[in-house]
Amino acid sequence: MLLNCDLGESFGNWRMGEDALAMPHIDLANIACGFHGGDPQVMARTLALAKHHQVNIGAHPSYPDRQGFGRRSMALSADELCSDLHYQIAALEGMARVQGLTLRYVKPHGALYNDMMRDNAILATVMQAIASYPSELQLMLLATGQRQQHVLMAQQHGLSLLFEAFADRRYTDQGTLTPRSQSGSVLDKQAMLEQVQLLVAEAKVITDSGQSLALNADTLCVHGDNLEAVNAIKEIRALCAR
Amino acid sequence: MLLNCDLGESFGNWRMGEDALAMPHIDLANIACGFHGGDPQVMARTLALAKHHQVNIGAHPSYPDRQGFGRRSMALSADELCSDLHYQIAALEGMARVQGLTLRYVKPHGALYNDMMRDNAILATVMQAIASYPSELQLMLLATGQRQQHVLMAQQHGLSLLFEAFADRRYTDQGTLTPRSQSGSVLDKQAMLEQVQLLVAEAKVITDSGQSLALNADTLCVHGDNLEAVNAIKEIRALCAR
Amino acid sequence: MLLNCDLGESFGNWRMGEDALAMPHIDLANIACGFHGGDPQVMARTLALAKHHQVNIGAHPSYPDRQGFGRRSMALSADELCSDLHYQIAALEGMARVQGLTLRYVKPHGALYNDMMRDNAILATVMQAIASYPSELQLMLLATGQRQQHVLMAQQHGLSLLFEAFADRRYTDQGTLTPRSQSGSVLDKQAMLEQVQLLVAEAKVITDSGQSLALNADTLCVHGDNLEAVNAIKEIRALCAR
Amino acid sequence: MLLNCDLGESFGNWRMGEDALAMPHIDLANIACGFHGGDPQVMARTLALAKHHQVNIGAHPSYPDRQGFGRRSMALSADELCSDLHYQIAALEGMARVQGLTLRYVKPHGALYNDMMRDNAILATVMQAIASYPSELQLMLLATGQRQQHVLMAQQHGLSLLFEAFADRRYTDQGTLTPRSQSGSVLDKQAMLEQVQLLVAEAKVITDSGQSLALNADTLCVHGDNLEAVNAIKEIRALCAR
Repeated sequence: MLLNCDLGESFGNWRMGEDALAMPHIDLANIACGFHGGDPQVMARTLALAKHHQVNIGAHPSYPDRQGFGRRSMALSADELCSDLHYQIAALEGMARVQGLTLRYVKPHGALYNDMMRDNAILATVMQAIASYPSELQLMLLATGQRQQHVLMAQQHGLSLLFEAFADRRYTDQGTLTPRSQSGSVLDKQAMLEQVQLLVAEAKVITDSGQSLALNADTLCVHGDNLEAVNAIKEIRALCAR
Repeated sequence: MLLNCDLGESFGNWRMGEDALAMPHIDLANIACGFHGGDPQVMARTLALAKHHQVNIGAHPSYPDRQGFGRRSMALSADELCSDLHYQIAALEGMARVQGLTLRYVKPHGALYNDMMRDNAILATVMQAIASYPSELQLMLLATGQRQQHVLMAQQHGLSLLFEAFADRRYTDQGTLTPRSQSGSVLDKQAMLEQVQLLVAEAKVITDSGQSLALNADTLCVHGDNLEAVNAIKEIRALCAR
Repeated sequence: MLLNCDLGESFGNWRMGEDALAMPHIDLANIACGFHGGDPQVMARTLALAKHHQVNIGAHPSYPDRQGFGRRSMALSADELCSDLHYQIAALEGMARVQGLTLRYVKPHGALYNDMMRDNAILATVMQAIASYPSELQLMLLATGQRQQHVLMAQQHGLSLLFEAFADRRYTDQGTLTPRSQSGSVLDKQAMLEQVQLLVAEAKVITDSGQSLALNADTLCVHGDNLEAVNAIKEIRALCAR
Repeated sequence: MLLNCDLGESFGNWRMGEDALAMPHIDLANIACGFHGGDPQVMARTLALAKHHQVNIGAHPSYPDRQGFGRRSMALSADELCSDLHYQIAALEGMARVQGLTLRYVKPHGALYNDMMRDNAILATVMQAIASYPSELQLMLLATGQRQQHVLMAQQHGLSLLFEAFADRRYTDQGTLTPRSQSGSVLDKQAMLEQVQLLVAEAKVITDSGQSLALNADTLCVHGDNLEAVNAIKEIRALCAR
């Protein structure tokens, strides 16, 4: 079970996330591309950090909304979204090549991620954008009950997928995340570690109704926001030996 | 004598330049990368236009100043400038590869171009940025009396240069452009065509003092701002048969 | 019947609209505030132009989306929208006061305008933002079949309204605009002038089903995009003598 | 001796400075206006905080360079600078009026502050911009050996000045700050408190050459970047009883 983490989300003089502390413990670094977080210098530094720790890298593109940190849905046309994705992926990939690194995958950020998970037209545009990019890139998306449908869509685009699960979020019986607004949707540490253990050992989660639900995931999303979060990564790491 | 032209400088809903009319008559398209002009959609459209007319493409990166159209000097550190160049070059190169195109060269824009021509420290940073980029890219710069010094600098970076001359600007005895503020610095059409003819036939210009000055250039900078400018390109084209 | 027009939508080096030609023929200038179009210099110039022609001025605020020209819906919180409106209104009002002008009203732009017309929660936030601003400002919105409901909402906020009709758009029986995607939704010149005449003389329009519909409007929205549009303003002006 | 502090420099999801902790201990809050830091929501929150603690407010405008945090010189024309200042001052002043607050002064930020202190042409543009703004606003600038010249310039613009000294920076015999690159240019806490005491008691500083230099200041610049800085404010406050 690979651990993935959003990194490189500082901007200019503003620092965000304990990237240097989190990087040694993860397998996949989702690196911001300048549209919601990150800037060319931050990207260069984050790539150097990933290189130093031999962490695989992916692009973490977003809607063009720095003020809203990419967390506000925007009504982009398919053409606009496709070009915005190509631009961000290309910027990061070229900067990765400067450091001798190879870009492996794409994980959309924030509102774009949520929008593609609820709207297949947007997901199709994302898939089309990645498939038409001239490097072999996987798409990372949420492991849900629609996994088979997503695999079929990806096959039509000639695309390979990476399914991720959330260590710290409660699932519904349908295999979606319970909304953050709902009490208990974010797990405490003990519950999180239990969920990780169950995911790793049996590819299952216990849903908010108490049911056991099969959930096959390739990677777990972890967070490096602060020291406490980094400590949680280390404990999750211990459960997901490389 | 190749003709190069700045293109792809529209932004969002704002249109700039007669790109579709100019593209058929040029050899080298300097394409904006989103920092002073251009956006991901404009870049995709401009690349498609260059592909259709089989025009070679270069990156036209800038200081990060859309409001000032990259025409205001900014005091960037060498690190900042290098990262900003890598980001822009990478974004355009990846989008070019989406369309099966190969990026050939880099021509800095506006204040960055002027700054690198007057300050060797900035020029060295530009050269270093391009040389460290993992594709074979030439640097386009102004053909001046310092040509030999520039060739030596470039050799130290393992870089190949493209020297450009301006069809429509009056030169000084030192081989620099007379400032725009000086009367007669921009040539009328007849004088421009005479200058082009002399450059093509004898690699010379007549300076503002009436001297004849040797000026070896690989390419002429032409403009596609409006219909009149495009017509001038056609007349220059006739003097510079491919 | 007052004529209102969107102006000041140039940005930096990019020019948009024939502001200087349109200004003499209108009564109300909707001036962009820098979020979708306009920048501080453009705003100063547009205000000077309005002053010269003694045209009343309003703020034309937008979602923060320059690349999309404010035409893409964005999921802003009420707090974000309120602050974004206050900021834009304040910026324009202060710059107007520099020139001795008084800001009179607010007309939201693009996607924000459409969103507030279809979603009363967004309309309420817009009303709340304007009502809490410490100058007497009217809200300009679309005259529709919901006019009475809008008047009631505005009264609850202590706000005064300006209802606008569109000279060149076909209306439905419900008093909304037919979507642009529908054939015939934008009137040709002859049909536009007939619609203006009917609006001015009888406060009516003929809808897309051929019905006569009462439509009380305080102002007509006209366009200054190009010479043809400015000529249409002059003809509309002739029908709406001051 | 009044204490002034830069505040409201968070942006979107990025937090900067311990504003809530610093505000109770200062007299003058220099509030960012969105060009280098701050956004409409941050500005509204910062104004509310100043209101709560009855702290006087000033605008802290900048060059338009968010990525560089306004710390990179930009070659703006006088017209551009004047409009950029009007826009920022107006935006903050209107938002202050929403909360019933009155804007008192303007303190330029970062590179703009440094540029106006070394170049009288830029200082004149700043003075002209503030003097032409239709509210009574003072300009805050550095107390130096040129104080008299600055007072004369200000009188010509009908402007009133607020001179500030730096608690934690070493001065030269000419009454300028020693460059940050020079060892000892930033004082340790003990030296800082001694400098404050001397400034308050005798309007003097001890320069880097050991001379005593007269320095009349109306206000001391303090910092609220982190807990340590806020603690220093409290100690300075004890020496500058209100």
